Amino acid sequence: MSGVTELVERVLAGEVRGLARAITWIENEDERGLELLDALYPRTGNAYRIGISGPPGAGKSTLVDTLTEHLLGQGSTVGIIAVDPTSPFTGGALLGDRIRMQSLGLRDGVFIRSMATRGGLGGLSRSAPSVAAAMDAFGLDYVILETVGVGQSELDIADAADTTVIVLVPESGDSIQAMKAGLMEIGEIFVVNKADREGADMTVQEIMSMLTLKNSSGGWDPPVLKTIASTGEGVLELAATITEHREFLETNGLLAERRRVHFVTQLREIVVAELEKDLYARLGDEAKLDSLVGDVSKGHRSPYKIAREVLDGITRDR
Amino acid sequence: MSGVTELVERVLAGEVRGLARAITWIENEDERGLELLDALYPRTGNAYRIGISGPPGAGKSTLVDTLTEHLLGQGSTVGIIAVDPTSPFTGGALLGDRIRMQSLGLRDGVFIRSMATRGGLGGLSRSAPSVAAAMDAFGLDYVILETVGVGQSELDIADAADTTVIVLVPESGDSIQAMKAGLMEIGEIFVVNKADREGADMTVQEIMSMLTLKNSSGGWDPPVLKTIASTGEGVLELAATITEHREFLETNGLLAERRRVHFVTQLREIVVAELEKDLYARLGDEAKLDSLVGDVSKGHRSPYKIAREVLDGITRDR
Repeated sequence: MSGVTELVERVLAGEVRGLARAITWIENEDERGLELLDALYPRTGNAYRIGISGPPGAGKSTLVDTLTEHLLGQGSTVGIIAVDPTSPFTGGALLGDRIRMQSLGLRDGVFIRSMATRGGLGGLSRSAPSVAAAMDAFGLDYVILETVGVGQSELDIADAADTTVIVLVPESGDSIQAMKAGLMEIGEIFVVNKADREGADMTVQEIMSMLTLKNSSGGWDPPVLKTIASTGEGVLELAATITEHREFLETNGLLAERRRVHFVTQLREIVVAELEKDLYARLGDEAKLDSLVGDVSKGHRSPYKIAREVLDGITRDR
Repeated sequence: MSGVTELVERVLAGEVRGLARAITWIENEDERGLELLDALYPRTGNAYRIGISGPPGAGKSTLVDTLTEHLLGQGSTVGIIAVDPTSPFTGGALLGDRIRMQSLGLRDGVFIRSMATRGGLGGLSRSAPSVAAAMDAFGLDYVILETVGVGQSELDIADAADTTVIVLVPESGDSIQAMKAGLMEIGEIFVVNKADREGADMTVQEIMSMLTLKNSSGGWDPPVLKTIASTGEGVLELAATITEHREFLETNGLLAERRRVHFVTQLREIVVAELEKDLYARLGDEAKLDSLVGDVSKGHRSPYKIAREVLDGITRDR
């Protein structure tokens, strides 16, 4: 296909502008993007994927920046996939992200890409794992997936990362704890950032006691670290702990298993999305919908009954 | 089908134990449940659906209780669908709910059903709209859908309710505001509960200023009320405001339109879920998966390429 072979070569040769264009194609999920991925996937498997999530205001971006500086200092190369909350109410984060890109993005060894969220609530974009794959084939040593931990996104990130880091800040209150439930279940490393704030040690204790409720996941007990991302304090230890977790996964054969599970999850998502597209096309026509659904203000048919008709239609027409 | 006709008659006759059994069938989504729904749906359309959501600890349950008492006092009948967070970290809510059922659940005119969430994060169960339909056909005047506003659930509730009420409490902090973004977008009535706490007026102001960022949705400006659910203060005004919103929807022809949109959303969810089931059955066989996915620890094929093979298989086999 026109241009695909050339772009594959540019990505594999480590050309930054080639990677940028490749990611755009992949995000568009068009035919060229899919052809490109087919060619890039066999060259993946070397980049280590670090997922970083946590509530808004926890200082994730700053932590990602300092962690990246550290990895660059060790001679590694880093790709960052930063997920922008698209909600108009949290739009302020976008500006901060752009400023950040200017300070980090132009340096050698680091490649930053901002992506839109799946919905308004901060999930990881469906194409994020494929963008990570492109960065992997490009030759980056680390890919950091950064997303706001609201709702669905923490599950998404755990489905895409080799190591999932959850960033929290000193604070208390029942409501905040309950919101963190999802985060507790998926974190492999916990970070209490802004640890110079009052209550940091108590928050560490709180997290540790919540973690005792969780089933130990195959021999790894999630450590709880303290950082002050803005000064770099604790970031060295975080990097070391990520490496420790990586070695744990590798020596136990768990990394390959995990990546396989993630791959299957991604595969399922793609298939379901394709089926949904098919369905939306089918239900998108207002006249068709009217004839199927009828007048629901009066007594009407069960949605399950109508669903069976639609499903029969998909079988017949596909 | 065995027993379906009889159970339909019992539900339509207003027999409480018949409704309880019907809901169990519906939740199981088995053939009998679907037959039952087919028979009940034509008798729906009278119950008014109130969605109540908000963060954990906002006092939703108490507010639902006092609102229910008020509606019962007016001679109305009420069904409550309370969604239990199933996460081990918020399990405490279950006990409170059971205590509540004893104080309200045995009285005439009210029917309470607790349901499990979709995942660990507090979404509305997929069968909740159908359970509401059964309560509707049974003859209840109001169905209150109560769910914790974390992640996906607030979207779910807005997809099922005629009027969506968001309950918040006096508090501040950027991170909490950002988490509320999703709630802001779907609320039609806002309640600052525990309004005797410090900062209540400031929270009201905050919500109102966030609401000015939102596009006015067709002529209804969401009011922000103050309540103290534990003493009943402000609940009368809340009930009146819900009625006001209902009249607004009805006089503008928006209620029928909204219910139609909700019905189509539910229909789509059912169809997608069926397609997913099909897919999971197809991918569930480990041997099949292995042959499809191959060894992902080495370089491997693009998930999009494999997805196309799976989709071709669905077309061929269905």
